[in-house]
Amino acid sequence: MKSDLLIDVKPGGLGKYETFQKLMPDRNIIDWNDEPNRPTDLSGVNYAMGWHPEKGLFARMPDLKLMFSVGAGVDHMLSDDSLPDLPLVRFVDASLTSRMSEWICLQCLLHLRQQPTYDRQQAQRVWRDLPQPDAHEIRVGIMGLGVLGQEAAIRLKGLGFQVNGWSRGKKTVPGVNCYDDAQLDEFLARTDILIGLLPYTRQTAGIFNAALFAKLSRSSPIGGPVFINAGRGKSQVETDIISALKSGRLKGVSLDVFEEEPLPQDSPLWEMENVVLTPHIASVSDVKALAAHVNNQIERFEAGLELQCLVDKKAGY
Amino acid sequence: MKSDLLIDVKPGGLGKYETFQKLMPDRNIIDWNDEPNRPTDLSGVNYAMGWHPEKGLFARMPDLKLMFSVGAGVDHMLSDDSLPDLPLVRFVDASLTSRMSEWICLQCLLHLRQQPTYDRQQAQRVWRDLPQPDAHEIRVGIMGLGVLGQEAAIRLKGLGFQVNGWSRGKKTVPGVNCYDDAQLDEFLARTDILIGLLPYTRQTAGIFNAALFAKLSRSSPIGGPVFINAGRGKSQVETDIISALKSGRLKGVSLDVFEEEPLPQDSPLWEMENVVLTPHIASVSDVKALAAHVNNQIERFEAGLELQCLVDKKAGY
Repeated sequence: MKSDLLIDVKPGGLGKYETFQKLMPDRNIIDWNDEPNRPTDLSGVNYAMGWHPEKGLFARMPDLKLMFSVGAGVDHMLSDDSLPDLPLVRFVDASLTSRMSEWICLQCLLHLRQQPTYDRQQAQRVWRDLPQPDAHEIRVGIMGLGVLGQEAAIRLKGLGFQVNGWSRGKKTVPGVNCYDDAQLDEFLARTDILIGLLPYTRQTAGIFNAALFAKLSRSSPIGGPVFINAGRGKSQVETDIISALKSGRLKGVSLDVFEEEPLPQDSPLWEMENVVLTPHIASVSDVKALAAHVNNQIERFEAGLELQCLVDKKAGY
Repeated sequence: MKSDLLIDVKPGGLGKYETFQKLMPDRNIIDWNDEPNRPTDLSGVNYAMGWHPEKGLFARMPDLKLMFSVGAGVDHMLSDDSLPDLPLVRFVDASLTSRMSEWICLQCLLHLRQQPTYDRQQAQRVWRDLPQPDAHEIRVGIMGLGVLGQEAAIRLKGLGFQVNGWSRGKKTVPGVNCYDDAQLDEFLARTDILIGLLPYTRQTAGIFNAALFAKLSRSSPIGGPVFINAGRGKSQVETDIISALKSGRLKGVSLDVFEEEPLPQDSPLWEMENVVLTPHIASVSDVKALAAHVNNQIERFEAGLELQCLVDKKAGY
């Protein structure tokens, strides 16, 4: 028997673990959320994977060698002060990336083509066409140029949008004007649709706030800037989003992430105009792809090869 | 003074004609819908442009040499038995094409990502994720592989969809499996999202009906076939669409065109689930681009050069 893999992903998130067991038949797969069968002794567990895992859990495994995050984000693990000083591998695969691009392209097109207004008109049986700029006239600005941001940039360009990108350290993406930390104001002034794809770190906490929205372009052909966030909810200040929508500083928003998830029932966002909300589904890990990734990295680790998707814990992503 | 250009486009469609007059300062631009100033004598009019022009109007111009349609469709002109036997030029430009692709990509993504369901959940303050296939698993079938269909195919492939295409005569489009008239059933059996981009001709009248819907794939990963029509309303049988939605034969539809436009107030389509309606705005002619096109073709005509976008009146497009 090879060493154990412990999984702490809340029920529903990944379903059961047949996919993992099939791929790793000689490994003991421990589902930490299967409470009646929860082991008391965590020795022998070399590998652990989590999504918002129980605080302190990973520190209780004396033989732990390698840690996995189920998604691209790792803030939920790094916020655990007791997290062992071991390699942490995150999950970024083609499926995760393409699903995120689908959602972002959908939301950009939806605001460009004024679908929320047409939906309201449909509900009222109103037949009325609206003035319509085209994608070439719209500047999309992506904050966060990792794998997800770069892929989204390529897809958006394919749809005709102008695309700019911002990241802390300057990056080079073909066909995309890239801005760095010092050029944030310049970047925002040239942004009609702002897309948040930032990890949650000390630097990005609450970054999408009134002060930032105030710096967005005032000449958007779609009547005002649009904010789309598929990164992390704690990067946004929802009271500021609500005020900006009311004042017209923001024309519309699409949010897949929230300060508190699920979004509280009393949030005014639920029923505001030009607000599209989805329940953190922009990019959902495909279980088969995830299992293959984890198995692959464990095999690389055991063969002494370099790990892929290794997190820089100091940078936070 | 050069010869006249008469324009019969209903008010609102193109606004006033400053753009045309600026581009052709030495031509007399006649707005046929400016009734008080409507000329009684139509001699001297060499060029006429229309969108659903008054029946018989073009036949009343003794000096007419060239006719223009404001859009890609010309059925509204060809249905006029008195239409003179003169060259008819339609309008297909980059803006028209890219706007159509935007709308089609939007509608495909919207049904793929179950946005109508998420919209309903949002209205009810429900936080619930849905099982989600990705674009690679979905076969989009485009009926009509003209300029608009080919462009849409490329954009949809860029978003990850599998794309098949059908046209009366077999075409070759890179990366797209093309089917012809004899292979319609085979094409439909492999279609999860069906896109109508057909011209309105005797062959296409009512083609999107119950018999056709019955032949669509029964294994769509999104729970049933979706029908999207941005071609011509008279190609679809709306009572059949409504029945197919009720029976589940169709999972959803997006319609930009209708048998009768505006869509009658008593149509059940207005408030059916998973039905997205827009008021014939998928692709709207850009006035500046249109004026440039018309001016360009008149200049080519007067210089004895071959015309572009010339309609084959026998084929009907």
